[in-house]
Amino acid sequence: MGLASKLSRKILSFKAVVGIVGVGYVGESLALATSNAGFKTNGFEIDKTKIEKINKLKHKNLKATDDKKLLASCDIICICVPTPTYKDNTPNLEYLTIAAKEIGKYLQNGQLIVLESSVAPGTTRNIVAPILREAANERKADFFVAFSPERIDPGNTKYGISITPKVVSGLDEESKQLTIEFYSKFVKQIVPVSTLEIAEMTKVFENVFRLVNISLVNELSDFARSLGINMWEVIDAAATKPYGFLAHYPGPGAGGECIPVLPYYLLDSAKKLKVDLPIVKKASETNHMQPHKVASHALRVLNGSNSKNGQRKALIVGVAYKGEVNDIRGSAALAIWEKLEKEGVSVYYHDPYVEHINGFSSKQLHPEFLSEVDVIIIATAHKNISYDLLVNCQKPLIDTRNVLREFASPHIHRI
Amino acid sequence: MGLASKLSRKILSFKAVVGIVGVGYVGESLALATSNAGFKTNGFEIDKTKIEKINKLKHKNLKATDDKKLLASCDIICICVPTPTYKDNTPNLEYLTIAAKEIGKYLQNGQLIVLESSVAPGTTRNIVAPILREAANERKADFFVAFSPERIDPGNTKYGISITPKVVSGLDEESKQLTIEFYSKFVKQIVPVSTLEIAEMTKVFENVFRLVNISLVNELSDFARSLGINMWEVIDAAATKPYGFLAHYPGPGAGGECIPVLPYYLLDSAKKLKVDLPIVKKASETNHMQPHKVASHALRVLNGSNSKNGQRKALIVGVAYKGEVNDIRGSAALAIWEKLEKEGVSVYYHDPYVEHINGFSSKQLHPEFLSEVDVIIIATAHKNISYDLLVNCQKPLIDTRNVLREFASPHIHRI
Repeated sequence: MGLASKLSRKILSFKAVVGIVGVGYVGESLALATSNAGFKTNGFEIDKTKIEKINKLKHKNLKATDDKKLLASCDIICICVPTPTYKDNTPNLEYLTIAAKEIGKYLQNGQLIVLESSVAPGTTRNIVAPILREAANERKADFFVAFSPERIDPGNTKYGISITPKVVSGLDEESKQLTIEFYSKFVKQIVPVSTLEIAEMTKVFENVFRLVNISLVNELSDFARSLGINMWEVIDAAATKPYGFLAHYPGPGAGGECIPVLPYYLLDSAKKLKVDLPIVKKASETNHMQPHKVASHALRVLNGSNSKNGQRKALIVGVAYKGEVNDIRGSAALAIWEKLEKEGVSVYYHDPYVEHINGFSSKQLHPEFLSEVDVIIIATAHKNISYDLLVNCQKPLIDTRNVLREFASPHIHRI
Repeated sequence: MGLASKLSRKILSFKAVVGIVGVGYVGESLALATSNAGFKTNGFEIDKTKIEKINKLKHKNLKATDDKKLLASCDIICICVPTPTYKDNTPNLEYLTIAAKEIGKYLQNGQLIVLESSVAPGTTRNIVAPILREAANERKADFFVAFSPERIDPGNTKYGISITPKVVSGLDEESKQLTIEFYSKFVKQIVPVSTLEIAEMTKVFENVFRLVNISLVNELSDFARSLGINMWEVIDAAATKPYGFLAHYPGPGAGGECIPVLPYYLLDSAKKLKVDLPIVKKASETNHMQPHKVASHALRVLNGSNSKNGQRKALIVGVAYKGEVNDIRGSAALAIWEKLEKEGVSVYYHDPYVEHINGFSSKQLHPEFLSEVDVIIIATAHKNISYDLLVNCQKPLIDTRNVLREFASPHIHRI
């Protein structure tokens, strides 16, 4: 029996052992989906907190570990490591290449390796596959390689893995078919595409679409403000158009690990190919400048106010990169914080989802504390925040999320 | 009884007489809607063909005329004139100001004037209303002014006027309420907004959203092509994401009277306000360059081919600005034509909806004629074109609309 048929049988009988490399928000969701579906699943992770979090679940099919040797016991290995950027916004593929090398070290004949991390088109074929092939040659093993982009939307309670269509591609037809068989076991709709690059580009496009549209509304919001037009009302009105429109909302800048990051992967790739992407570039610049605009507005407010003792104090409300999550990676709030601090402002924060950041702790919204603050910036609109407390303290209140739309107060700056 | 109550009663009893100034595709659709609803309707037009077209319908409530004196007999006047740009892409408000002046000349006490034409925010308040006010002062008449943007999508058989929500705003509360009452008679959902400018900006935003997203896919399409990726397959795959994505498709450049034009109104307004709109600007530039890219591709094909007698011949298939319409205004096909002609190419066209353009006639797709052609460019994908004839003639075939996706032929250039 060929390697593909062997693995196929294991998948169909749920006897395939699944390995998930990286159990952050993507890997964890996937690990829960595979183990709930009935696959014995090992989550590979170096972060002890994440390992403990998963093992606390005491799931009969799921175990997290830092023991890489166990990679050898897996039939299918999904790579879910972060693909961030370096400080100069170029792609940082270190996590990915390290993961591929570790998998290579323990590579077994007939293993299927599926990359789920978001990457520029060509990465699976030109970076991941060669690493595995080299290892395979040494170990005289053969393997399957596929790319199937994660579509996990943290905080989205409506669309979980099982009901979100899954785009699947393979290095060859057997790899693709095996990957389709695997995901079919716990995802309702599989979307096979013809090449690895199509699947990689699909994920990049989804993120770029979001970034461009968010930056577009931020750009239009500046224009609207200069005319005294409330952009939020414009968006709500436009959203009544039953076709050809999708609402995106202004804010302090899109954050997180995907929307602002993937466009940099695309721009880096385009630069190498000498293709100009002016819209993506401008959207990226606009998004990057967005927190600075908010901070500048706060500084103007502070400069206009009479601080008691000269030491100006700012409170940032919501530091996670979006509502109802605890993830602060790439959050605009942090960029606002940094800029204010540079200008000599003392910065405090409140976020019910984020207890501590770099030695700071989330402040309680006590009236006494609020009375000492010179400006409040709502950067992320969590639902479980007492916005009335913020409005009642009558301090200048910069609302970047329109969460105070129902409040009328001269202290509110709607930007 | 006040003027507003008087008009309100007339609307509720369908005794209000409606005037539509300009019965192009917007005004004609509106005139049909008001007359079908039961309002006696006069369409005002200078183009005799359009007048005849409407009067041929012999609709009991609808009449088209060039007799402006009849404006005095109307209770509600909707302005549906074109708002194009000059050659330098600045707003051409001549049709609009002429219409406002004509209406002013015959202004009656208690008339409601509704602007439906797409304009930059502030136009109704700062340009239309003052013209009417001046006339009203002279004539000792009072009037109501509103803005309610048209949302007519030519060729869209799904969303007619009655089921497309209508955004409504007024110069004052009475104007707004009367306008809501009026449109409620033939539109299911009315969306009142707080100011004229919000309504004006809503329409601009809807168009800018489309332009930016179309230009974005055109930009990404160039990138994808350089990697050998089929962008159409990428878009189809991305479109399976059940949230946060809306598909737009590549092409030779968005045409028509709205999508490429309104962004210029916005850019002009932003320039005066000294607000930078980099994304809108780049999207506009990309859209403007799109037909040139197609023409350049055709020229490269022509330069590589051996033309029999040295005179290179190109056939453009589909010259309307989009499928299933006969409107050629702003069509990318015309820009492609112009560029090819400048390079000494003889250009022919085929379009089942457009019989004649500037002395040229739509060519039949006879094999004899096709055998003389050196390159074929599909610029607009009408459904009733025999694409198999085009493929069978084995001439280089540039498909800008992916309408030949089912055909496999080495002669097809998919761009």
